[in-house]
Amino acid sequence: MKLAVVGAGAVGTSVVELAGEYGHDVVAVADSATAAVDEGGVDAEGVLARKRDEGVVGDANPEAALSADYDALVEATPTTLGDAQPGFSHVERALGRDRHVVLANKGPLAERYDEVRALEADSRGTVLFEAAVGGAIPILSTIDDLNGQVTAARGVLNGTANFILSRMAAEGLDYEHVLAEAQDLGVAEADPTFDVEGTDAALKCVILANVLYEDSYALADAEVEGIADLPGSALELAAEDGRTIRLIGEVADGEVRVGPRLLPENGTLAVSGTLNIIQLETKHAGRLNISGRGAGGPETASAVLADVGRLPPLE
Amino acid sequence: MKLAVVGAGAVGTSVVELAGEYGHDVVAVADSATAAVDEGGVDAEGVLARKRDEGVVGDANPEAALSADYDALVEATPTTLGDAQPGFSHVERALGRDRHVVLANKGPLAERYDEVRALEADSRGTVLFEAAVGGAIPILSTIDDLNGQVTAARGVLNGTANFILSRMAAEGLDYEHVLAEAQDLGVAEADPTFDVEGTDAALKCVILANVLYEDSYALADAEVEGIADLPGSALELAAEDGRTIRLIGEVADGEVRVGPRLLPENGTLAVSGTLNIIQLETKHAGRLNISGRGAGGPETASAVLADVGRLPPLE
Repeated sequence: MKLAVVGAGAVGTSVVELAGEYGHDVVAVADSATAAVDEGGVDAEGVLARKRDEGVVGDANPEAALSADYDALVEATPTTLGDAQPGFSHVERALGRDRHVVLANKGPLAERYDEVRALEADSRGTVLFEAAVGGAIPILSTIDDLNGQVTAARGVLNGTANFILSRMAAEGLDYEHVLAEAQDLGVAEADPTFDVEGTDAALKCVILANVLYEDSYALADAEVEGIADLPGSALELAAEDGRTIRLIGEVADGEVRVGPRLLPENGTLAVSGTLNIIQLETKHAGRLNISGRGAGGPETASAVLADVGRLPPLE
Repeated sequence: MKLAVVGAGAVGTSVVELAGEYGHDVVAVADSATAAVDEGGVDAEGVLARKRDEGVVGDANPEAALSADYDALVEATPTTLGDAQPGFSHVERALGRDRHVVLANKGPLAERYDEVRALEADSRGTVLFEAAVGGAIPILSTIDDLNGQVTAARGVLNGTANFILSRMAAEGLDYEHVLAEAQDLGVAEADPTFDVEGTDAALKCVILANVLYEDSYALADAEVEGIADLPGSALELAAEDGRTIRLIGEVADGEVRVGPRLLPENGTLAVSGTLNIIQLETKHAGRLNISGRGAGGPETASAVLADVGRLPPLE
């Protein structure tokens, strides 16, 4: 397939780097200010080197990428809340042109899901978004495979919060100390709000709810509590009882909740470090657990490219 | 789809029971001596009651089920080694008639994989077999989704052996004692050879190798060691060092191996009881772990029915 990649952060640049290995051609790449477009396939190495060295992907206007002749648009711009722009308008334009859309961006799926599905229904294009939930973990394709059998989902959906909690528990350190360490290691961003307040995990749970219930949940429908106020003493008390605390997102009985939860210390859900895990409850297949890397450029890009591989041919 | 279910053990009868819920019709059911055939759909409850009460599924000859007008044959007869009969001939007949085949039976896939693939290549039918490896765990569809990215697979693929080892470790009991308990609970069969000698896990690994390497491995190509000779003292020694022992199957570097392995006691692979887990190493997506129920009638039937849902329409 011919891909236009919009967004040149860790995920977008990894898609550009790996697309060829999956048999696809990147014909356009855009960051927020520039674009590179080549109908014969952009020079991936050149684009990546220029992004790294000069902070731009090419000499064209981003508009040139959006109007390029592609089969599938890869939407990898940063997740935004509310109107979910500019991601939503990129989705709208691609579907309006009867092209496919593969999203890594959670915004349009968590905040404007019914609109995205309505646009898809009027388009010959298909919308897929495995990369938006759980990074490399193939959770949406597993849910799809289970044919409506999944009744609930829960798990650890934010690696930054999980890293902080596992370090606090293992080392007896307090939140501020571990956050600083996580920032030094590049595991937490300079502004960690999205991760530690539970917003990122909640967006993923909202998307799971939209898929499981074929409904249109938004962030405002989720009950969300983060980990920033969790005292180190809570983890110590939990440990005395063979337990630990993790930030758990849950979709069950029509509700979406994210918050710190007490878990058995060696229980399935108590994964360590930046790992993510999702547990599915099913009608006939019991409980399934899938764990893996929930973030990272190549990891998330491989979920994007798996989606590209699932797209039907454009008629 | 119209299904013919051959084999009326735990998996076959569960497929008959659940097919309607997945939107499919069972038009024929056979056990080793009898069959029920109805082009309008067999009376599932009636067939299951008769199997339970009288040990037969109907008044017809099994031959009538094999020649019925179905879209997909569900092969759920017991796994046999060597010539993998009668499963192999059922597969051969269905593909010869240009029908689909969904296998829960490991025999034809582990012992005669190249022949099955050659028959499929000459047929308009498709062969799928998610249920043959890891029961409810969607491991083959995950490997398929990963587009050739998987470089190795390992894990716990036999619930009976895992139950025995986890009980031995947790209670300090010896093998014979725990085996008797497992037999009482129905977790181990009267003749547990297939499970405790590692054969069952090896067959699953051979099938994984066939899928990963697109080659034709057979049981004879696997290096297999079971758990029957493992002294309780080995588990005690392991525990003193924070470790435990599990029967691990592995497909890596072109080789298939099954045997007892030392693992960290709370490590990802050290699942408890009858749970199964499979760990995939990938090129770009890191390591994925999937755990769930590796056996059981409804669990395995739900993998069979997920495969049925994936079959293309017969042209």
